[in-house]
Amino acid sequence: MAEPTLPSLNNLTLSDTITEAEFSQRVLIRSILCRSDSGAGLAGQTIKVGGWVKKGREQGKGTFAFLELNDGSCPSNLQLIIYADVAPLGQVVPTGTCLHVEGVLQMPPEDKQGKQSIELKVVKVLEVGSVDPAKYPLPKTRLTLEFLRDYVHLRPRTNTISAIARIRNALAYATHTFFQKHGFLYVHTPIITTSDCEGAGEMFQVTTLINEAEKLEKELVKNPPPSQEDVDLARSVVKEKGEIVAKLKSDKAGKPEITAAVAELTKAKENLSKVEERFKLKPGIPKKDGKVDYGQDFFARQAFLTVSGQLQVETFACALSSVYTFGPTFRAENSHTSRHLAEFWMVEPEIAFADIEDDMKCAEAYVRFLCQWLLDNCLDDMEFMVEKFDKKAIERLKMVASTNFVRLSYTEAVTILEEAVSKGHKFENKVEWGIDLASEHEKYLTETKFESPVIVYNYPKGIKAFYMKVNPDKKTVAAMDVLVPKVGELIGGSQREENYEVIKERILEMGLPLEPYEWYLDLRRYGTVKHSGFGLGFERMILFATGIDNIRDVIPFPRYPGRADL
Amino acid sequence: MAEPTLPSLNNLTLSDTITEAEFSQRVLIRSILCRSDSGAGLAGQTIKVGGWVKKGREQGKGTFAFLELNDGSCPSNLQLIIYADVAPLGQVVPTGTCLHVEGVLQMPPEDKQGKQSIELKVVKVLEVGSVDPAKYPLPKTRLTLEFLRDYVHLRPRTNTISAIARIRNALAYATHTFFQKHGFLYVHTPIITTSDCEGAGEMFQVTTLINEAEKLEKELVKNPPPSQEDVDLARSVVKEKGEIVAKLKSDKAGKPEITAAVAELTKAKENLSKVEERFKLKPGIPKKDGKVDYGQDFFARQAFLTVSGQLQVETFACALSSVYTFGPTFRAENSHTSRHLAEFWMVEPEIAFADIEDDMKCAEAYVRFLCQWLLDNCLDDMEFMVEKFDKKAIERLKMVASTNFVRLSYTEAVTILEEAVSKGHKFENKVEWGIDLASEHEKYLTETKFESPVIVYNYPKGIKAFYMKVNPDKKTVAAMDVLVPKVGELIGGSQREENYEVIKERILEMGLPLEPYEWYLDLRRYGTVKHSGFGLGFERMILFATGIDNIRDVIPFPRYPGRADL
Repeated sequence: MAEPTLPSLNNLTLSDTITEAEFSQRVLIRSILCRSDSGAGLAGQTIKVGGWVKKGREQGKGTFAFLELNDGSCPSNLQLIIYADVAPLGQVVPTGTCLHVEGVLQMPPEDKQGKQSIELKVVKVLEVGSVDPAKYPLPKTRLTLEFLRDYVHLRPRTNTISAIARIRNALAYATHTFFQKHGFLYVHTPIITTSDCEGAGEMFQVTTLINEAEKLEKELVKNPPPSQEDVDLARSVVKEKGEIVAKLKSDKAGKPEITAAVAELTKAKENLSKVEERFKLKPGIPKKDGKVDYGQDFFARQAFLTVSGQLQVETFACALSSVYTFGPTFRAENSHTSRHLAEFWMVEPEIAFADIEDDMKCAEAYVRFLCQWLLDNCLDDMEFMVEKFDKKAIERLKMVASTNFVRLSYTEAVTILEEAVSKGHKFENKVEWGIDLASEHEKYLTETKFESPVIVYNYPKGIKAFYMKVNPDKKTVAAMDVLVPKVGELIGGSQREENYEVIKERILEMGLPLEPYEWYLDLRRYGTVKHSGFGLGFERMILFATGIDNIRDVIPFPRYPGRADL
Repeated sequence: MAEPTLPSLNNLTLSDTITEAEFSQRVLIRSILCRSDSGAGLAGQTIKVGGWVKKGREQGKGTFAFLELNDGSCPSNLQLIIYADVAPLGQVVPTGTCLHVEGVLQMPPEDKQGKQSIELKVVKVLEVGSVDPAKYPLPKTRLTLEFLRDYVHLRPRTNTISAIARIRNALAYATHTFFQKHGFLYVHTPIITTSDCEGAGEMFQVTTLINEAEKLEKELVKNPPPSQEDVDLARSVVKEKGEIVAKLKSDKAGKPEITAAVAELTKAKENLSKVEERFKLKPGIPKKDGKVDYGQDFFARQAFLTVSGQLQVETFACALSSVYTFGPTFRAENSHTSRHLAEFWMVEPEIAFADIEDDMKCAEAYVRFLCQWLLDNCLDDMEFMVEKFDKKAIERLKMVASTNFVRLSYTEAVTILEEAVSKGHKFENKVEWGIDLASEHEKYLTETKFESPVIVYNYPKGIKAFYMKVNPDKKTVAAMDVLVPKVGELIGGSQREENYEVIKERILEMGLPLEPYEWYLDLRRYGTVKHSGFGLGFERMILFATGIDNIRDVIPFPRYPGRADL
């Protein structure tokens, strides 16, 4: 066997060569700086890198420059040193400049090694995407997240938005990995839907009617519709041609003669039906009996953007047992808060042969897995968050990853809140059995009382959706919410009512019509199964992880009232 | 060291115990039947399973029954044997019945071991979801895929749709795994967009205007708007109250008196502004200058469902280098073909510091990875597809996974097609340089000429989108399409034009306005970067893999003109 290598290289993941990314002409900066030796073992290697200059400064009276280069693969920048004979320094130092360069990795001078363990001496500039610093919309001075919302197309170039993008990516892949590992199948539930999940929520309508009406209006201006006279004329032509045919037949005329007359009649009839059809055309959205005629819309009925994939994913759970959906959902609510978006992503698992206990177990395991994943895979980005936004962010992840969630029934939760009130704690919303817990109540439980994630279960029937399983007490349903510090409610779920008679009753009780739910009732009518599921608001999870305050900053392209850039 | 164990157990993945799924009260049937010993080593274990009866038959004059149970975890069914003293057999044998049972795994009698390597003797029925066979909409007789489209909520219970669901799931996770492995970040591009990607495509509109108009109409019926007289009256009250205040002031009246009069004036003014506002209300969709007033729509402008995430994901590629999006996209085309959906999923990677060569390399590696993944992870489902739908399905996956894709320029492709014509091959569409290749041409290249995947690159500028990089010949663009047997075009991609002046020129050349693309131009104005990307139609990939003919059968909830069930 070979001699043991030096301690700093005695790591199986370290090698003294480095490979290029397979589909782009560069080495990822992460693969240099995120080695356990921070790249030191790579000194002497000639490589290509690409990225954007974060900060550049000319030195040595303009003979060389230091550039901090970032390629998005990690939060750290690679330091480049470039001499004036390699490129005009004025062109490469401005913040935002894109550089694709070849160079040699080298150890920085000994007195600088505290800051940088490795730097790249540029020998050739392959390509430059320059920036006019006078015009660049993202100046070097500290930018607020609010300011950046006006530049959604450029904000990924900032440290904060790129760190959030990497954390979001990690949480998405962790989500898939968790459910795949546990044998769940990913199901793409529909975005365009003709079901309204909870008979509530403000929904966006999806339509081609307005577009079609505008097209028609233009067309009618260009080519006016026929008048009543035109219609009468076309009709009289049909009558006349018909009479000719009748006469020829009664006169026993020759076959070719009759055939020719019939052909003319047919033509006249076709013309009449065209004229009549165009006569009926009215500008504006088509109406029938005073209402919008959705029979003429693209899907021949009214269609919306989904508010949840749950009901639809249940059709797969009631056949393939363990499934989940992860996709965009929508609310047309006129909310201008830091917690609401019109378009956001939801993770919704649905499990057959599972009751509310299994559901809570799954929710807890999933959230803890996500937290551990970030600690294992995104620690550098999390450190950035701690430094810039939330001192407790890493601590919170560690706590959640390692803590058994407190579980208490809704009734116990209300008792605890009432005790707090009696001891002088002030809530804005009154506490009594039957209320929907307000955000302040949830935060009291998870942040003050337990300082831990809390699952509250068995909520009053009256404040929950029709599809939740009624408990034997007939007063509560097998619903559960996962509450976490910082954001409050992170997950809402329930065991679903699988009894056909009971769920039918519940739909009627809520004043909902049965007809649109017949397909949902079919799942209970034929081979019904005990099943449970929950929904996690993906952006809430990112707020929880990062400590960022406004939900508009944790989704790449935020949509809210009055704004849908790009 | 221990003695070597028996050959059949000499497999590290085999154990003689089996664990329950963590979040549901059962063992996955896959974990029994998909062992290399097909479950034989588990005989004697007491377990719970849950699933739906595929086929049941009473035997021994009604003393026991055999049931084929499927839980969706794999295509195979577990055979249950259940005696009449455990449950009424009539209740458990109908197809579609849901069963949750406890039993003992046992070797079937020796003469039956050809078919089954293990069966479960049921000792206790935990739960039954019964089916009335007379009413169950999915009778046992062979159902066509077309028939099943009327039962999207029940069709996941069929062998075909469940196999497709598992293949679709595998391809989705393989997609994420491939890109994550190569350092790409997953970016959620927006579903609701105010950009029209190619200035072409029919788009669905997203709006709350119709809904708001309907609400307003109802409200105006219930509570009619004020008349001109009401407005005049309110106005005269304001005038009168104003005069009183003026008089009191000029009379130097006491402060309390003036304050009271001012309060009355304020009230009258408030009332007037309310009356005036309601007076302006008009039923119907709000208009301004004869056009729909989108200023009053939810996003204060016209909004659509995205047709592609490419342009938006470029903003992240031009900051984080290697990214991809995977999400739903939409076309409001009135296509009734077996190849088009109104809602479908697309995978769109975008790579900085990459040219068209890198792009082709990435596309090839990705497609081959997907094929190999199915061979490694879904062979049982693929075998089902071979048996029922497409004898060549597995052969095709193996061929693609192991073959270097043929690469030829568009010009070479046209020459080959022209040669075919001159040798007597008949195409419906004329072949000449400048045409867009039709499906028949693509199939000729990939299925007849090369019998291999083919990448055609460098297409004529005139038939491609404005954002594709113009080649030095000024006649072609650096575009590429991946063609595969069975479906033809699977992927379309290009190097993007990164030169500010050139892309601006191209937008104008296409007759498009610059203003909506200013953000896209910014990516070239500031720190521009060479970059490339492509789009893979996810459903096309599933058609290719499975051999299924109609795209409506490979997406859980198909949307097409006239249909959007659930």
